[in-house]
Amino acid sequence: MKAVILLSGGLDSSTVLYQALADGCKCYAISFDYQQRHRRELHSALAIAQKVEVVDHQVVKFDLRQWGGSALTDDAIDLPQKRPLEEMSQSIPVTYVPARNTIFLSFALAYAETIAAERIYIGVNALDYSGYPDCRPDYIQAMQEVFRLGTKQGREEQPISIVTPLIYLKKTEIIQLGNKLGVPWELTWSCYAGGDISCGVCDSCRLRLAAFAELGLKDPLAYAK
Amino acid sequence: MKAVILLSGGLDSSTVLYQALADGCKCYAISFDYQQRHRRELHSALAIAQKVEVVDHQVVKFDLRQWGGSALTDDAIDLPQKRPLEEMSQSIPVTYVPARNTIFLSFALAYAETIAAERIYIGVNALDYSGYPDCRPDYIQAMQEVFRLGTKQGREEQPISIVTPLIYLKKTEIIQLGNKLGVPWELTWSCYAGGDISCGVCDSCRLRLAAFAELGLKDPLAYAK
Repeated sequence: MKAVILLSGGLDSSTVLYQALADGCKCYAISFDYQQRHRRELHSALAIAQKVEVVDHQVVKFDLRQWGGSALTDDAIDLPQKRPLEEMSQSIPVTYVPARNTIFLSFALAYAETIAAERIYIGVNALDYSGYPDCRPDYIQAMQEVFRLGTKQGREEQPISIVTPLIYLKKTEIIQLGNKLGVPWELTWSCYAGGDISCGVCDSCRLRLAAFAELGLKDPLAYAK
Repeated sequence: MKAVILLSGGLDSSTVLYQALADGCKCYAISFDYQQRHRRELHSALAIAQKVEVVDHQVVKFDLRQWGGSALTDDAIDLPQKRPLEEMSQSIPVTYVPARNTIFLSFALAYAETIAAERIYIGVNALDYSGYPDCRPDYIQAMQEVFRLGTKQGREEQPISIVTPLIYLKKTEIIQLGNKLGVPWELTWSCYAGGDISCGVCDSCRLRLAAFAELGLKDPLAYAK
């Protein structure tokens, strides 16, 4: 079965790629260069896609700095640093990028329909950062309906399925799943800050570090702080 | 009221822009350079946006030739020529671009949320080319649900509305509406073929020419055939 995997190079999407392989899929990766602050993550996406020998890997380029609106696409908006984990899940943070997953899933849908794939895997998660509206189950269900009605494949045959293996997992559970599947954490990248080594203080680093620590494991990445 | 208008430079989207102005909106245009065969249409989009003095005009660039899959994004797939109009509405034609409107609406949604717009206007039409799955009312309704659930604005305030003034109109009725609104047809562009003047034989030219002819009007564009 052919599957398109949204691969950012982070911990979650890398685990999802390994899950798709474990599910027996022929994997086609898709990554996005949207001029994000942390474009460095694309190196990780390429390295991981190469390591597992995906059938194909498409990197789609566009520029969300055209209108900005997020700390990830506008350098004038500062990244939150050293925030307590509880605070992260209380409201939609400034790292929210308007309609990002909708754009990502739309391109994945176009690619999947062109190659006649049956599934699209995405590493959305409703628990961490529960503020992100486009990571929640009801949103995914709405996109599934778009997949059914908005394509030739969906109207005439079987719609492409959105598969979300991580949606109800905690970060610690994602790491446990990744360990079982053999995800090479040293190749992944989570930091938002855009440096050459991970900052250790942005929300994304803190969530990741806290989860490794809670499990009594060592994150193999180097951190500035 | 702020509105984002999807503007290809064609007859339909130009009419929609004029309708949005007539509705009293402050108009923000968005156009797409996706390496379409008929990129020439972007000149028309720019000319029309300039003529009505939109507040802003974003041209989003990406490359759908990366995977092709349509006569509009793959030169190896020939454009249909001189097809009878009845045939065009019987099945999904090779000019169908997988997930195109979903991609377009996703970017429009991102832009609209960033500038806090209340509406997005799109010139979809369910009658001509009724084959296109992503021009039908049930599809638009599904995207509306994505707009509600997939954005901060949709979750916390009023969702951005998708406005489709042409969805139930025939091409002749669209021209009549455009005439009432004063749309400068000479600045618009419909041809798919990618030449410097309109071919007159692709589906898009034929639909347009037939509608002008049916109304006893002359299309001000020059045609090769």
